[in-house]
Amino acid sequence: MVSIRSFQNLMHRLYFHRDSERGTEGTYQWLREEVDELGEALTEANMEALAGEFADVAAWLASLANLLKLDLEDALLQKYGNECPKCHSLPCNCPFTTRKS
Amino acid sequence: MVSIRSFQNLMHRLYFHRDSERGTEGTYQWLREEVDELGEALTEANMEALAGEFADVAAWLASLANLLKLDLEDALLQKYGNECPKCHSLPCNCPFTTRKS
Repeated sequence: MVSIRSFQNLMHRLYFHRDSERGTEGTYQWLREEVDELGEALTEANMEALAGEFADVAAWLASLANLLKLDLEDALLQKYGNECPKCHSLPCNCPFTTRKS
Repeated sequence: MVSIRSFQNLMHRLYFHRDSERGTEGTYQWLREEVDELGEALTEANMEALAGEFADVAAWLASLANLLKLDLEDALLQKYGNECPKCHSLPCNCPFTTRKS
């Protein structure tokens, strides 16, 4: 079992020296590129490649959080502790929409 | 402590009925919009809002993984078990680049 915090700590040990050098804006842009790659992988039916792209998006999200000294596990618990943050139900009972905007 | 798997399971319990209705493409597009919002929040210095945006990106990433029946914790362990997947060092010792492309 891997906790969200221990994964974020591993990313810190692995990459914080590089992330610091690149900075917040560069690290965010890299995250965006990983999300683009995830989108491309969705169009192919290769689960192994897809798993790698999911891992990359999570890794860059953790790197960005590390640069901001933000604890991802706390952020997740705060917003999605045990219910939908909007309707306060589990499962979510919000009116269904297909798109955010 | 929250494991990556238990967070993904919570997102399943909360949102899988909605995610299924929306589908993979719509859920991916929503993830992209959350990444845009994270970028906007980075330009403001409101840590509470920023934490919420990080949580949203992670939540939508988990929703997308749920639709594909992909275990995020396995994907992360597979790629970032205990070393950089490229140079196989901890900390990473790859040549430094500021941008992916």
